[in-house]
Amino acid sequence: MEARGIGKGFTGMGWEENVRKVVPYTPGEQPDKEGTIKLNTNECPYPPAPGVGRKAAQLAADKMRLYPAFPEETELAQELARFYQIGRDELFIGVGSDDVLSLAFMTFFRSDRPLFFPDITYSFYDVWADLYKIPYETKALDADFVIRKEDYMQPNGGIVFPNPNAPTGILMDVGQVEEIVAANRDVVVIVDEAYIDFGGTSCLPLIHKYDNLLVVQTFSKSRAMAGMRIGYAMGDSRLIKYLNDVKYSVNSYTLNYAALQLGAESVKDEAYFKESCAKIIRTRDNAEKRLAQLGFGFTKSYGNFIFASHSSVPAREIFEKLKQNDIYVRWWGKKRIDNYLRITVGTDEQMEALYGALERICGHQSNAPLQSND
Amino acid sequence: MEARGIGKGFTGMGWEENVRKVVPYTPGEQPDKEGTIKLNTNECPYPPAPGVGRKAAQLAADKMRLYPAFPEETELAQELARFYQIGRDELFIGVGSDDVLSLAFMTFFRSDRPLFFPDITYSFYDVWADLYKIPYETKALDADFVIRKEDYMQPNGGIVFPNPNAPTGILMDVGQVEEIVAANRDVVVIVDEAYIDFGGTSCLPLIHKYDNLLVVQTFSKSRAMAGMRIGYAMGDSRLIKYLNDVKYSVNSYTLNYAALQLGAESVKDEAYFKESCAKIIRTRDNAEKRLAQLGFGFTKSYGNFIFASHSSVPAREIFEKLKQNDIYVRWWGKKRIDNYLRITVGTDEQMEALYGALERICGHQSNAPLQSND
Repeated sequence: MEARGIGKGFTGMGWEENVRKVVPYTPGEQPDKEGTIKLNTNECPYPPAPGVGRKAAQLAADKMRLYPAFPEETELAQELARFYQIGRDELFIGVGSDDVLSLAFMTFFRSDRPLFFPDITYSFYDVWADLYKIPYETKALDADFVIRKEDYMQPNGGIVFPNPNAPTGILMDVGQVEEIVAANRDVVVIVDEAYIDFGGTSCLPLIHKYDNLLVVQTFSKSRAMAGMRIGYAMGDSRLIKYLNDVKYSVNSYTLNYAALQLGAESVKDEAYFKESCAKIIRTRDNAEKRLAQLGFGFTKSYGNFIFASHSSVPAREIFEKLKQNDIYVRWWGKKRIDNYLRITVGTDEQMEALYGALERICGHQSNAPLQSND
Repeated sequence: MEARGIGKGFTGMGWEENVRKVVPYTPGEQPDKEGTIKLNTNECPYPPAPGVGRKAAQLAADKMRLYPAFPEETELAQELARFYQIGRDELFIGVGSDDVLSLAFMTFFRSDRPLFFPDITYSFYDVWADLYKIPYETKALDADFVIRKEDYMQPNGGIVFPNPNAPTGILMDVGQVEEIVAANRDVVVIVDEAYIDFGGTSCLPLIHKYDNLLVVQTFSKSRAMAGMRIGYAMGDSRLIKYLNDVKYSVNSYTLNYAALQLGAESVKDEAYFKESCAKIIRTRDNAEKRLAQLGFGFTKSYGNFIFASHSSVPAREIFEKLKQNDIYVRWWGKKRIDNYLRITVGTDEQMEALYGALERICGHQSNAPLQSND
């Protein structure tokens, strides 16, 4: 590096002093080997609604020369507002829920008091807090990995948690969510409902009662459109206005023409959406039985994944051996959860391949004592 | 608002105190009336390369269920690296050049010293500076709207300017750019080359000589893909790494599957790209003659637009009257440039319609004295 600096004109790289240095979030691996079974990033195993494919074939290249429409003025916004029975001024659309959450962190968490979120949760929260210099405090889940609502009743600068929580899949009922929101009227509470469509009940109706609640959802899981990057937030129109002001101070145009066109088609097809979620729930229910027979314990998941721990074989070992079999699941190696795997619910066929591999890796453990956390 | 707060449970909207309040950038209008002649946002009047349309028809809906590839690992990055003869580690790709610039502001301009940029320039710079709390000082262009390089030789926390400058279109030669970069080795200098393909010479080769130079370009103008949101930065691999670290701390996946696929097709077709730029340059050259005959003076533009002022009719009046004729150009009403219009170079047919309307609005001014700024 020294040598290189000298090669470029004797700079000491003085500019490096004033660089924002951060440790980025590490997403799950994206192997592109044919035949890989990808159960590591909670993608949907089924394709998007058929209308999405039909519309894709009709995208007009000539439209691409123009800047895209503002999301709030598109058919996508219209369809989402209709689907959720909310006003278009109660809806914000971004480039995946990560974009929405990142902007919301930047917009709403400006207090000197700490932001609260669980110790075991979506691992992007502390990355955004660090990036935007937001003070924060994590609140430990209880021994069963459940969020203790009392922890969120102390003075704070904001609250964020996923419901169901990730990577545990544990659902908080709407009554408890309301208690937290009601007890924190002077800060913004973000409920990250990325996984709400797999059996949970959304707290969305509460946005009409509490102006400090922002509900965030995504097209990446239940709508099978992770590749198109669409996420959205719903809340009081003033929350949405502040979010839009910051968004339009970062980048006027974020969702491209294709995302806007195809997203709308997905929302139109309610029957396909419901059937797709129902299939995943059925496969998840079956997976619980099969994994239990293989010696796994797990939390009760309301996500499109199962958070599981084996009674005798270490998670890391299973993770590595599955990878050798071209089956990818997620393992973090973090405190408290280093003996757990997060396994995305795939197709029934993919899951059978997984069970077969697990049987080889873990041996016949059907009589082993179960280690369950719920 | 009071009443509403009360309706929602007696909140005083305490959360509002800690909201980041900003004044967003205002982009040009996007009228969607059929037959409108849109010469207000510097879009390309010609469609993207034919390969883009062909590829669009082949987008696979099933691929959309997966998260998109990381931009740096895609064919798009490969094609750009080949086109510009740079390493893939010297390239960063974002959601339009606004995304790239916004991330670069956040990443590199962290000094207590002020960021420098021209007083008349792309009006997003001060918005980002305000958003990220970056101290800044604008440097006045000279009476002919030319950047005075000496102004950028004083102690500062970073430098950014477009080349050619916007909205003047005035080009700085590479030698002068190099003087500025060389005199500021302890800060990052961003050269925003959104309009470089319309006759200017890029300072790109300097990135191999100066590790503090970041060159930003876009697919929105010369590549006719504003609707797909693709921009990129080129610079020393360490600059790019820092930029990526921040990017991956904001949102792991930004460019969607469609943008990645279609962007690559655009870069492959060099002949189309060159011909498209050449056509715009020819129309611009002709527009200079025609506008002069109509009584306009203008700077020598190297952009896909002309920055023009009429000898007798106020810019605002022309702007309003053109709009009544469904012809949109850009007018800011800001100090120093409130008698100027920025007119995007359209097709020859669109420009003829413009000249016709201007003739009606400004009368026959062909003998009026010209007011030229170059």
